[in-house]
Amino acid sequence: MDLEKLFRPKSMAVVGISKKNPLSPGRIVLLKNEFEMDVDVYGIYPSGGEIEGIKLYERLDKLPIIPDLLVIAVGPDDTLEYIKECGDLGIPTSVIIGGGFAEIGGKGKKRQEQLEKIAFENDIAVLGPNCLGVYAPPIVDTIFLPTERITRPPKGSVALISQSGGVLVDQFFVKFNERNIGVSTAVSIGNRAVVDEVMLLEYFSQVDQETSNIAFYLEGFKEGKAREFLQKAKESEDTVIVYFGGKTREGKVATQSHTASLAGNYKIIYNALRQHLVIQPHSERELLTSLKVYDVLSQRRNPFKNNVVTYGNVAIVSVSGGHAVLASDMLKKYGLNAVRFSPQEKRDLKGFMNPTAQEIASFNNPIDLTGSVLDTDIEDVIRYLSSIERIECIILLLLPYPPNISFQIGRRIANIVLSKNKPTVCFVPYVSKYSIIIESLELANIPVFHSIKETVQAVSALKHRTRVNNIKKGNYSWE
Amino acid sequence: MDLEKLFRPKSMAVVGISKKNPLSPGRIVLLKNEFEMDVDVYGIYPSGGEIEGIKLYERLDKLPIIPDLLVIAVGPDDTLEYIKECGDLGIPTSVIIGGGFAEIGGKGKKRQEQLEKIAFENDIAVLGPNCLGVYAPPIVDTIFLPTERITRPPKGSVALISQSGGVLVDQFFVKFNERNIGVSTAVSIGNRAVVDEVMLLEYFSQVDQETSNIAFYLEGFKEGKAREFLQKAKESEDTVIVYFGGKTREGKVATQSHTASLAGNYKIIYNALRQHLVIQPHSERELLTSLKVYDVLSQRRNPFKNNVVTYGNVAIVSVSGGHAVLASDMLKKYGLNAVRFSPQEKRDLKGFMNPTAQEIASFNNPIDLTGSVLDTDIEDVIRYLSSIERIECIILLLLPYPPNISFQIGRRIANIVLSKNKPTVCFVPYVSKYSIIIESLELANIPVFHSIKETVQAVSALKHRTRVNNIKKGNYSWE
Repeated sequence: MDLEKLFRPKSMAVVGISKKNPLSPGRIVLLKNEFEMDVDVYGIYPSGGEIEGIKLYERLDKLPIIPDLLVIAVGPDDTLEYIKECGDLGIPTSVIIGGGFAEIGGKGKKRQEQLEKIAFENDIAVLGPNCLGVYAPPIVDTIFLPTERITRPPKGSVALISQSGGVLVDQFFVKFNERNIGVSTAVSIGNRAVVDEVMLLEYFSQVDQETSNIAFYLEGFKEGKAREFLQKAKESEDTVIVYFGGKTREGKVATQSHTASLAGNYKIIYNALRQHLVIQPHSERELLTSLKVYDVLSQRRNPFKNNVVTYGNVAIVSVSGGHAVLASDMLKKYGLNAVRFSPQEKRDLKGFMNPTAQEIASFNNPIDLTGSVLDTDIEDVIRYLSSIERIECIILLLLPYPPNISFQIGRRIANIVLSKNKPTVCFVPYVSKYSIIIESLELANIPVFHSIKETVQAVSALKHRTRVNNIKKGNYSWE
Repeated sequence: MDLEKLFRPKSMAVVGISKKNPLSPGRIVLLKNEFEMDVDVYGIYPSGGEIEGIKLYERLDKLPIIPDLLVIAVGPDDTLEYIKECGDLGIPTSVIIGGGFAEIGGKGKKRQEQLEKIAFENDIAVLGPNCLGVYAPPIVDTIFLPTERITRPPKGSVALISQSGGVLVDQFFVKFNERNIGVSTAVSIGNRAVVDEVMLLEYFSQVDQETSNIAFYLEGFKEGKAREFLQKAKESEDTVIVYFGGKTREGKVATQSHTASLAGNYKIIYNALRQHLVIQPHSERELLTSLKVYDVLSQRRNPFKNNVVTYGNVAIVSVSGGHAVLASDMLKKYGLNAVRFSPQEKRDLKGFMNPTAQEIASFNNPIDLTGSVLDTDIEDVIRYLSSIERIECIILLLLPYPPNISFQIGRRIANIVLSKNKPTVCFVPYVSKYSIIIESLELANIPVFHSIKETVQAVSALKHRTRVNNIKKGNYSWE
């Protein structure tokens, strides 16, 4: 199946347009692609005519071309007719927005079986039914919600595949945007009657050049597909991340894994995924944190060029004692350790400080520079720590409340990180007046978080990726 | 000790002002109180003179009045001299900003013992040392960080007491502001040499009229004070919430409780606190969620007048199936249950819907109204559910992405809640274009959350409070 034409179509047609209701799904999809996206768009309407200056064709076979993609926004029985027509005309891909299939059981289930039969016989890559479809900027967007109502995430390296459309546009788009995580293609798979997680994993791993990280939000594997998924995940050159949402984790995962001949409890699934080098965040927040750092590592201007966090050895630098303690407390949970400084290193560190801070700062790791700190103290400390080889990553808890920290501090730190390439993750409070500090760091692709927990999670994510990369490169295989 | 004069001083003096350094802590405190707060401010400077038009007095005994409060921002040995002088002159309260006491061990510990002796002998309410002190709007603010750098929380019903100053101004002030949680007084207790959690609990319970909720962020109880704290918590008419941060929870709590003759593990402390009607959130986020709903319940215009959430019986209303599932999954963890609807109730609910949504919406609880929903459907459903007595609380997951939901929906829901007084908590995505919906609800004091988890936590918080209130009122005593 030609998924390339599903995600990067040159042309698309839309059926299910209402002339009366400007908010009908088909009409929204028609107009948003015509006015906002790069794909060539054709509308189908039984009596022809036009909408907002777009000519409407009476039938699919009256179109001047064979479109790469057909978006179907009609009832379930008519949907089947259109899929048949795709087969007849040679339309290679389709997004089915509407429901009325397996999710309603009974006759819906039969309909879905018919749908699968037609699609596989005619080699049509059908996405859905019962889904939002594809968001692949700048080419195509089949999400039938008005663009001005949803939040579009920035462009980037993450292919995002979700079993729930609502979770995709709300939980992910909103939070990707907040965190500045970039998406290559977002896919709502709905009932995944034809195109499923295995095909998508294969496509984004092997075909799509824009994607470096493939993230799945699933409520369970498709029946019988778990083994194949695991195998493809292990072979993928991209970083594969799977998060099971909802009750799925212990519930549906277990069920699905059973039919896929894996033992029926989550621990076994967890271990199987781990062995197959799939990264599994423990929460939705950790998923977002991981994607943020992986997206950064995929940038051409990756600030952590020599990123290897094998053991999780970190140095924590804070200007607040309480924050340093909270961060330290979390290290163990995330498999990280604070390196120990030698007496000479402590003396060196102390030597960098201004006289006032020198008296009260502590250098045990966590390093507490205190509220008496100056920009130059922070700079010198970060530069020094960057040169210590056994420190794999620096956690900088940067609270700009002390009066002597300047608003240039973000740029100053960015310059050091970019010259030293030591992985450095920063906490900066999410307060609009500090946006210049946050932006200075993020413009240099240095990830900034707004909770201590996420900052620590980020290092853990770097460690997971180092492990996966080492095994994939055959460097070693440790568990 | 007269804590009223510490938190509501009519006059204050500041020692430790630098004429050279505009960012010295003493100078910042002097100026921010003079220019931003209501208290009368006097500065002390050995050679007199003035700063920014404020006359400086050479010594404390040269002041024209005896101030209610002395803020001390000098080194530790000089600090002791000033505390002695407070005793001599009859200054009843003091905030000691600087460190050099018990936290550095050795001679610092001895200094702190001296400090305690003088303070108790002379009945001086000393806050600190090694603290940020008091933020009691609009009267006094001893936080030595520039106001323009920190985020001040709104005014409200919560007395907030923190063992860490950094955590207070960053984790709490920032997040109280984001969530619109109101503070009556915020206190950074530092080494709590004299004024401790027991005195503060007593003061805010019995004296302060502005406080209805007393929240503690502690790293452990003060040695020997656990029992007294528990007793006072049980007697308090306010809602008492304690959150142990950092390693404390299993670590320091255990130590402190040992010396307080309580068995040395967290589970026992947890149960003791529970028995003494202290509410204990499981995470910092849950603490914030609880305070948000308790602050709302303390408002004169409390929208949930007949708030009784005894069993945790909820109805979930969503416009996204995925969100409904995620919320349902969390109910059990938080001790809540989805009520079952009778066939008649389901028919009634279905009857409210527009024809399109009627076909696809589901009414099992969670109710999924689907993306085809209209404002009037939501209104009718909420009004109907509000009239069902066995539903104690409604969880409304309001995603305004579907095109037919209007931007008046917040106000429309608010009107129903205000007329029915059924506790209703809402999820609305945290996206600036939806601020009109969020504000419509919050202006009516209906709490809005931006994560599904926090929305569910909010109902759990209401249930905890119902339990505590019932026992305090002697209605019954169930565990």
